[in-house]
Amino acid sequence: MHFTSEQRLDDGVLERAFILGDVPGILWTPASAAVSASVPLILLGHPPLGLAKMYPRLVGRALSAAAEGFATATIELPGSGDRPRVPALEQARAELRRLMQAGEPVGDDIVDALVMPLVDTAVPEWQATLDALLALPEIDGPVGYSGGVISIGIRLAVAEPRIVAAGLFAGSLVPRAMFEEARQVTIPLHVLLQWDDEGNDRQASLDLFDAFSSKEKTLHANMGGHTGVPQSAGDDAARFFTRHLSGEERRSRR
Amino acid sequence: MHFTSEQRLDDGVLERAFILGDVPGILWTPASAAVSASVPLILLGHPPLGLAKMYPRLVGRALSAAAEGFATATIELPGSGDRPRVPALEQARAELRRLMQAGEPVGDDIVDALVMPLVDTAVPEWQATLDALLALPEIDGPVGYSGGVISIGIRLAVAEPRIVAAGLFAGSLVPRAMFEEARQVTIPLHVLLQWDDEGNDRQASLDLFDAFSSKEKTLHANMGGHTGVPQSAGDDAARFFTRHLSGEERRSRR
Repeated sequence: MHFTSEQRLDDGVLERAFILGDVPGILWTPASAAVSASVPLILLGHPPLGLAKMYPRLVGRALSAAAEGFATATIELPGSGDRPRVPALEQARAELRRLMQAGEPVGDDIVDALVMPLVDTAVPEWQATLDALLALPEIDGPVGYSGGVISIGIRLAVAEPRIVAAGLFAGSLVPRAMFEEARQVTIPLHVLLQWDDEGNDRQASLDLFDAFSSKEKTLHANMGGHTGVPQSAGDDAARFFTRHLSGEERRSRR
Repeated sequence: MHFTSEQRLDDGVLERAFILGDVPGILWTPASAAVSASVPLILLGHPPLGLAKMYPRLVGRALSAAAEGFATATIELPGSGDRPRVPALEQARAELRRLMQAGEPVGDDIVDALVMPLVDTAVPEWQATLDALLALPEIDGPVGYSGGVISIGIRLAVAEPRIVAAGLFAGSLVPRAMFEEARQVTIPLHVLLQWDDEGNDRQASLDLFDAFSSKEKTLHANMGGHTGVPQSAGDDAARFFTRHLSGEERRSRR
């Protein structure tokens, strides 16, 4: 992991761009990271629109998390931003656009083609990023995963034992195979659903929530479309991570 | 409204039993009510098990609300506690027990017979109670309604303009007619659903949530049975009322 730039943001938050292999990413650490060896980490997922386009929303989430004492990090998804295009993904996205413009149903094969290459490539990249981040002296864990492509969150929750809690956004197409993986998820989950999300199948989201095996899982459904998540929902999600990643919670469980 | 007894609880909260006509109830006011003319009020709903039996949970909710500066009040439901039995309700409850023991389905007619007499009688009683409470110098409003028989909360949300926000528990049988009334609800709603509530039809609860016309409505679903509501869900509901009933929110809307 090589840091390629750094800048100080509000409240002493340090933002550092990095590259790991050929995957660019950003790490945000709170001012407290300089004096404490015990900073938890939240991995920030995002949709495949490119880090540059997603930056304003990501840095907002990073600053909120830093105020709670959390470090955050994100990486560019395969085929997004400055990373090389993935021809199979480009083809699947073109086909999705064609179907949506024609008002035709989006079949399981297209959903698989859109999502599974992202999951299969991004999850090992997230895990390598986690190896590198936890090797830094200022990052300690525990680790949470938040938002973005929900299938990536599901696979990470199953495959990566260092992730102890996940906040998922039920707002993207989910391959049928991921419902089976969802049954293997047992960590605490906080699932956000926009009740009138124009691009999302509400019943499929409810079925997915039902499929998770986590003993502690919460669904928060709010009105409004995909981007209309109310401020209070963000606050609720922040408290979920504070409950599960903060030192107080860990100490009280011992 | 005649106060029949009073006692001081923790943190200076004043608990007063009252009777209004032939309806007994309890009013809790925070210590701040003695010095401020602006104390909001939350009406505490509860299942028809009698106030004496429900007291431990009600006083817990009252003390939590008082810590946020809210007065709370509750009244005995028709046919519960020391109030005279209602023969039609007794008959419907006996029939419900028979059906459940026999493992037979509970038809719409039984649901109507169990719930509609409660709604038709309790809602005017709640409204008369509200008249009397708001006439007290130490209670100001705004007014919220929280929990209990959800159909009573729906009818109150439609019929009583002084109620500006409601927290509802999707955990009881709902007559079909109440789905139509739900479409007339427009105040902010915070709906709690226990995902694995043994006595509740999950899909009916989701349909009911969908039916409300409120622009601001939130569904919080948690794991566990009817009585397994986690502490964090109670905290979330408290914040909902703080957002909608506290002076800060009212001031910021002006």
